[in-house]
Amino acid sequence: MRRPSDNTGPSADKSPRLYVEADLRDGGHVALTAAHCHYLKNVMRLKPGVHVRLFNGRDGEWRANVSELGRKAGSAICVARTREQDVLPDVHYLFAPLKQARLDYMAQKAAEMGAAVLQPVWTQHTAVSKIKHERLVSNVIEAAEQCNLLGIPAVRETKPLPSILADWDPDRRLIYCDEAAPIASPLEALTGLGKGPVAVLIGPEGGFSEGERATLRAQSFVTAISLGPRVMRADTAAVAALALLQAVLGDWS
Amino acid sequence: MRRPSDNTGPSADKSPRLYVEADLRDGGHVALTAAHCHYLKNVMRLKPGVHVRLFNGRDGEWRANVSELGRKAGSAICVARTREQDVLPDVHYLFAPLKQARLDYMAQKAAEMGAAVLQPVWTQHTAVSKIKHERLVSNVIEAAEQCNLLGIPAVRETKPLPSILADWDPDRRLIYCDEAAPIASPLEALTGLGKGPVAVLIGPEGGFSEGERATLRAQSFVTAISLGPRVMRADTAAVAALALLQAVLGDWS
Repeated sequence: MRRPSDNTGPSADKSPRLYVEADLRDGGHVALTAAHCHYLKNVMRLKPGVHVRLFNGRDGEWRANVSELGRKAGSAICVARTREQDVLPDVHYLFAPLKQARLDYMAQKAAEMGAAVLQPVWTQHTAVSKIKHERLVSNVIEAAEQCNLLGIPAVRETKPLPSILADWDPDRRLIYCDEAAPIASPLEALTGLGKGPVAVLIGPEGGFSEGERATLRAQSFVTAISLGPRVMRADTAAVAALALLQAVLGDWS
Repeated sequence: MRRPSDNTGPSADKSPRLYVEADLRDGGHVALTAAHCHYLKNVMRLKPGVHVRLFNGRDGEWRANVSELGRKAGSAICVARTREQDVLPDVHYLFAPLKQARLDYMAQKAAEMGAAVLQPVWTQHTAVSKIKHERLVSNVIEAAEQCNLLGIPAVRETKPLPSILADWDPDRRLIYCDEAAPIASPLEALTGLGKGPVAVLIGPEGGFSEGERATLRAQSFVTAISLGPRVMRADTAAVAALALLQAVLGDWS
């Protein structure tokens, strides 16, 4: 939930935009949470009768009329669908958790970059020992509310790298970033893959261990790419790799 | 100046890495600032005699021996050059200033992404009214210290967009991001340009005004690219656009 002035969406509608879990359909009543009500009443200084935009990641975006605005709950009635639901490209985003501020950022960025699935991964050099699933979800929703996104990536529970690899669907290419990639040009490496389900794996700030690298290289479904001669922080590499993936294999064309 | 554990560089040397302004040459004495001394003594708990790594963006990276470590000043003696200076690709990065935390981030990311010049630009919808030049420089240096970068982008004084365009060298392509770009695929648009000096311009959160867009489109040296169907925050678009530029026209190949 952000002030409308922060919205930079294609729509000229500057009314508040809220993520809800309920189904959205013509004339449907939608419950608003205490957090929604606080935002509309106390932050935005709005009253019942105001229009908002609702989305749930499934049913597009709806204009809705706020009918009740209490302290603990409220409700809105769907008036008209204003945008059709879009489908996110089949790009999964795997990452070693970072410390909190950068992790928040990483989750927001992955949503903006159009990843369909966020999968946190424990690696040997991962510096954090706990990850708050709910906080990852909040960050994804915040990015979606703010950037007028309709598709919400699914956030999966954190798993260790070996179990991720053991359960991998071999039809999905797994891209990871490695300075020692056999093809120096990341575009060439990605173009060679052809379209299809894809995932990108971003390691922790300390990088992958030698053992992890050897394991990754040994998988038939893994492709290493290089992101140039300079070292980047993990959250930078994440956006850079997703940009190349979207441009070559995703929906940026 | 960061703790060595934050370094993710290709070098196994984990000694403190400091940016200095002085020339670096074999046996040369280099003055350390009060901030350097505070970091080495109080943060890292080190004493005179310790080795550090020094770089200035011109003379590569040097191993140096700290000879004095006072409260207000210190000095170090260059022992050996450990890395040759590299040259940044001829990519300029123009951006409308954001609010402070995101601006810090934007400057750090541009350094990691290997931009040679950072040029802040006033646009009609720029939401901030003042920009601290010194703070931009500090962020660039922090990113360089932390990511083992040798090349330091030059940070220029902020200028209004019309004067930037009036003084533009027409041999340098200027790329900007526009949903209504004539070629939908950003890779296709960039590949069509051929190698040469290039710049990327990232607008403010509110986007460019209609007048600014018309002016940009009218310039012979301007190419519009699209970054896909989703809206991104300006700092995300910056990393994404620089990734595509480096992959197609820069040094990621």
